[in-house]
Amino acid sequence: MLSFLSDYTEGAHPRVLQALAETNLLSLPGYGEDLYCRRAADRLRAFCGDGEADVAFVTGGTQANLLVISALLRRYESVLCADTGHINTHEAGAIEYTGHKVVPLPAVDGKLPAGALAGYLERFYADETHRHMPFPGMVYLSHPTELGTLYTREELRSLSALCRRYGLRLYLDGARLGYGLVSPASDLDMEELCACCDALTVGGTKQGALFGEALVFPRHGMPPHFDTMTKQQGAMLAKGRLLGVQFDALFTDGLYLELSRHAVDLALRLKAGLLEKGLPLYIDSPTNQQFFILDNEALARLREQAAFNLWAPVDEGHTAIRLVTSWATRPESVDALLRLL
Amino acid sequence: MLSFLSDYTEGAHPRVLQALAETNLLSLPGYGEDLYCRRAADRLRAFCGDGEADVAFVTGGTQANLLVISALLRRYESVLCADTGHINTHEAGAIEYTGHKVVPLPAVDGKLPAGALAGYLERFYADETHRHMPFPGMVYLSHPTELGTLYTREELRSLSALCRRYGLRLYLDGARLGYGLVSPASDLDMEELCACCDALTVGGTKQGALFGEALVFPRHGMPPHFDTMTKQQGAMLAKGRLLGVQFDALFTDGLYLELSRHAVDLALRLKAGLLEKGLPLYIDSPTNQQFFILDNEALARLREQAAFNLWAPVDEGHTAIRLVTSWATRPESVDALLRLL
Amino acid sequence: MLSFLSDYTEGAHPRVLQALAETNLLSLPGYGEDLYCRRAADRLRAFCGDGEADVAFVTGGTQANLLVISALLRRYESVLCADTGHINTHEAGAIEYTGHKVVPLPAVDGKLPAGALAGYLERFYADETHRHMPFPGMVYLSHPTELGTLYTREELRSLSALCRRYGLRLYLDGARLGYGLVSPASDLDMEELCACCDALTVGGTKQGALFGEALVFPRHGMPPHFDTMTKQQGAMLAKGRLLGVQFDALFTDGLYLELSRHAVDLALRLKAGLLEKGLPLYIDSPTNQQFFILDNEALARLREQAAFNLWAPVDEGHTAIRLVTSWATRPESVDALLRLL
Amino acid sequence: MLSFLSDYTEGAHPRVLQALAETNLLSLPGYGEDLYCRRAADRLRAFCGDGEADVAFVTGGTQANLLVISALLRRYESVLCADTGHINTHEAGAIEYTGHKVVPLPAVDGKLPAGALAGYLERFYADETHRHMPFPGMVYLSHPTELGTLYTREELRSLSALCRRYGLRLYLDGARLGYGLVSPASDLDMEELCACCDALTVGGTKQGALFGEALVFPRHGMPPHFDTMTKQQGAMLAKGRLLGVQFDALFTDGLYLELSRHAVDLALRLKAGLLEKGLPLYIDSPTNQQFFILDNEALARLREQAAFNLWAPVDEGHTAIRLVTSWATRPESVDALLRLL
Repeated sequence: MLSFLSDYTEGAHPRVLQALAETNLLSLPGYGEDLYCRRAADRLRAFCGDGEADVAFVTGGTQANLLVISALLRRYESVLCADTGHINTHEAGAIEYTGHKVVPLPAVDGKLPAGALAGYLERFYADETHRHMPFPGMVYLSHPTELGTLYTREELRSLSALCRRYGLRLYLDGARLGYGLVSPASDLDMEELCACCDALTVGGTKQGALFGEALVFPRHGMPPHFDTMTKQQGAMLAKGRLLGVQFDALFTDGLYLELSRHAVDLALRLKAGLLEKGLPLYIDSPTNQQFFILDNEALARLREQAAFNLWAPVDEGHTAIRLVTSWATRPESVDALLRLL
Repeated sequence: MLSFLSDYTEGAHPRVLQALAETNLLSLPGYGEDLYCRRAADRLRAFCGDGEADVAFVTGGTQANLLVISALLRRYESVLCADTGHINTHEAGAIEYTGHKVVPLPAVDGKLPAGALAGYLERFYADETHRHMPFPGMVYLSHPTELGTLYTREELRSLSALCRRYGLRLYLDGARLGYGLVSPASDLDMEELCACCDALTVGGTKQGALFGEALVFPRHGMPPHFDTMTKQQGAMLAKGRLLGVQFDALFTDGLYLELSRHAVDLALRLKAGLLEKGLPLYIDSPTNQQFFILDNEALARLREQAAFNLWAPVDEGHTAIRLVTSWATRPESVDALLRLL
Repeated sequence: MLSFLSDYTEGAHPRVLQALAETNLLSLPGYGEDLYCRRAADRLRAFCGDGEADVAFVTGGTQANLLVISALLRRYESVLCADTGHINTHEAGAIEYTGHKVVPLPAVDGKLPAGALAGYLERFYADETHRHMPFPGMVYLSHPTELGTLYTREELRSLSALCRRYGLRLYLDGARLGYGLVSPASDLDMEELCACCDALTVGGTKQGALFGEALVFPRHGMPPHFDTMTKQQGAMLAKGRLLGVQFDALFTDGLYLELSRHAVDLALRLKAGLLEKGLPLYIDSPTNQQFFILDNEALARLREQAAFNLWAPVDEGHTAIRLVTSWATRPESVDALLRLL
Repeated sequence: MLSFLSDYTEGAHPRVLQALAETNLLSLPGYGEDLYCRRAADRLRAFCGDGEADVAFVTGGTQANLLVISALLRRYESVLCADTGHINTHEAGAIEYTGHKVVPLPAVDGKLPAGALAGYLERFYADETHRHMPFPGMVYLSHPTELGTLYTREELRSLSALCRRYGLRLYLDGARLGYGLVSPASDLDMEELCACCDALTVGGTKQGALFGEALVFPRHGMPPHFDTMTKQQGAMLAKGRLLGVQFDALFTDGLYLELSRHAVDLALRLKAGLLEKGLPLYIDSPTNQQFFILDNEALARLREQAAFNLWAPVDEGHTAIRLVTSWATRPESVDALLRLL
């Protein structure tokens, strides 16, 4: 069965696994105090072009989000996001469980428009009763978004400028960051991302690691006692080395972007092929997640031979599907899928 | 200066104050274990027409909401409400601070349409990933709503039926309940409210008490150890008697509804007068909060002689205002306001 | 029946009640923005001898504690207290419900010894794993303590110096503060208390008000957005005036200390009388709570004619009891109790 | 350098790593819905001798503790434990961060005596004010304890009986469970543990896995929607397979107990050797953690050639140290250490 289900259906890229095997018998200090974590942090600083960035590692995306958001917010602050944002839809209320309101704003193509943010902030501070509301403390963006779309440099700068004007922190969830960076549609690089954001994640789980997300706080921006908060939330790995070794491997010899490119190349080949066959786009994504509309009969037939997500009903007879590629996707699988349609 | 600012700008109705004075020197047990609390609870059960209702008292509305909601929800559950609902807009994230997501649904005239609720619940359970979302555990309604509007019997029954079908509790915030009950537009009585809801408040603060809200859990529905949770949230009054004495007075000889009627009568007289003068309604409210649209010049003049809330900008030249009556509003004040316009 | 049950079994002192009655019909802004709250805050600043103190009011003691503690702690910090401290024993886990660990240290006579605090802090920072522990962020003291005892000036200064050396905030729960201030055994005045502490409460509920605690943050120490956090915790009273009016009355013409003196005078008269009759002290308290040991037969007889708390079993045949006086206690009641024994 | 620092300084046992490598390229469903998780759960049920046990997997010990405890407690309940218990000392206030009080009781040899528990519960329910306290909802035990000691069958049965009499759940933290099970001093087997407990963990991190703890709820005792709570706390691994594959390997052909035996055998050989050399025990542990008292000069010399934990100062001239063995400890290292002393 062909699988385009997600970018985390396989284990790790062989070079990541090999690094774990090679370091397996070394006796190393726990809790992220080992040399691999330090080396991986150095590599991420270089990758970010910010020698003063603070870096930490946790095991998963929801964990990263709830930890960063609750560590950077004051208790009377909320986090704003596109209503399609992962923290608003698929994290089981994890942010609220830490005590903070998630304020969803209407998304356009999975993105939070700067205009929507500006409007919210203006109305908030114009409202005489705003001290009876949670204060906007952060903007959460996912990049690429849950719909595979990308913020442009101008969009990100506008959002960042608004955040700074109103005293909000800007946090970018980069669970699939690599797929954005290598996309031909992207005009954003890591320097720009770090310049605009107060915190961001560089995802490993969906980008070739067994598991793990790197947390980057540009310009020494990690809040004090972040490690204690990490422990407090059950997010500190005893064998922190596992994260260090994996990210060290991913950021050696350009593996991270190489894997990202592989996936995006195949996704765009798939997209071109499907467009050629006349399938309508559900949304125009330039990254490793592709969204097309199928009529339900074709859909039923396709599901017998390929695994993928049903994204949303479109009308009585049509459904949007999501097709995802990863480092593990083989070109032949793309060709095979195209032949099926 | 005339005041139509709110229904809590004065202290208590004289009979409430008198009851406090008369019982002042009695030595009574603390924490709500006194005879006045018991008697007030009995009177509320009679008022509700539910001899098996559990009753408790707390000092304010936000406190009532956060306590009832967090006591009735399981930790993985969310509360659904109209996006204009008080818990979503003006309680400083109090519900989220207890760990629960507030899910706002699009309101119509300040009310949550049963259709919007049904749609959300259907989509929720149809979504294969719904275990990654907080489960809908409760519906929150305010009645009258923040816009002075009222649910009809049919609307409430539909919402209640949906809640039961999907295992949600239905909670009605009655901070201004009396003004709804006496409104000529209302076809709901307490029996019906209690039959439909799992918990409701009967507001005192905005209805003639110094402070205080009664919490009613029909059909022995108070969750076990509710008093401990009340204490845990700092909501247990040492001199619980103060709440008992006030509610005892409010529910003696029909005072509660008498005061409600006074306020609604004056509000409707004000409404009729303003309509007669050609002022457009912002929303058609049958209760003690009235919403009209003023042009900004008239508004500026009026603000010199009367106090009231600016509710929302309508367009460049017009603004919606809110005018509120209470037990303390004098008929002459209504006449005076009408003369000003 | 004589009552020495507690200092909150009656309502309010008549002058407090009168002030509420006199201001009852005034139309005033809500949420503590009225002139009585401002005036009461001024009076408290004068009382504290700190013209830069920030002042707020809430309805009860547990509410005050959970609000101040959670507002002043960072999320990875704990609060240290005597193991007999109210927050550790009788507040239903309210502090923990806000996410913070309460670390109990062994009390001596209801007080936290500076030595115990110093020892804890030294061990904490000497422990190489202390980043895996919640950081000590605050010391909580009650003064008078739950056992009626008082910190001396030297004890308080030592605790305060330790707090400053280690970066802890010092918070003093003064639910019964007046009874401490007027005690002949006290060498502490408000200036000293404010100089030593980062936050303190001046209790009203047990000191002649209907209800209410004043929160004092010396030297402009109120955390930013404290009012929003108050609302978030359901602790903001719509008719904030009720707190302002009461504290204004209590701090007019020295009423607060006058009532405190009345209660302490009677308590010490009771103590002297009981000692004269040969009853052994359970603990030597110089304030309005007295603790004596009774044999269980005398206890049984006494309970038929007087109300008071059983404090703790002492041995098979003896029990410690607590006798409390207040502004409402009459001298004749003390004499009557003495005659009963 | 010899290392006796801990049982998590190396990666995983080679057979565990091999299983990860062999399954690496399989395309499997996420979030623990794969066949390896199911198979591992089956193996754990067999290991527990409880075919009806519910099983789940998370990545680490603190995560396991905070998730199980907060999922099984009602919001007004506390968890009781030995004051040396890990949740009370080294988890950064993680339990309190979920809103629950940890009530420490005086430990004896790292264990919670049934007598201490019984005394607490009797005093709690005898106290007339107990509704103002968090209700005891759970007992937390670690087995082996933080000091390497073991509960006996009789001790565990007494604790379990008390829990059932008073309505508490009994939770056993088995981060090092295997080392307890194989200890010659143990009279407890898995059947007994499961019969006595409502939840327990079977640790992987310190027992040969890369990471991971199995959560076992005997007799279908997993609370409803546990997976949603897992997600809510950021504890759900996208590639849940990683946990399934590892536990599947650990519980195939008796590997788990084989590795435990290896470590305990070496620990006891080390203990015998040190006793023979006249070193005094700090505590008498029959498991893989050994505690000895060294004079500080010997200590300084030893630290140059071996890594281990300083546990506690004993007196001016002596310090207790902890020596830990694991699956990765080689017999030659034990011999080498013995030669050094």
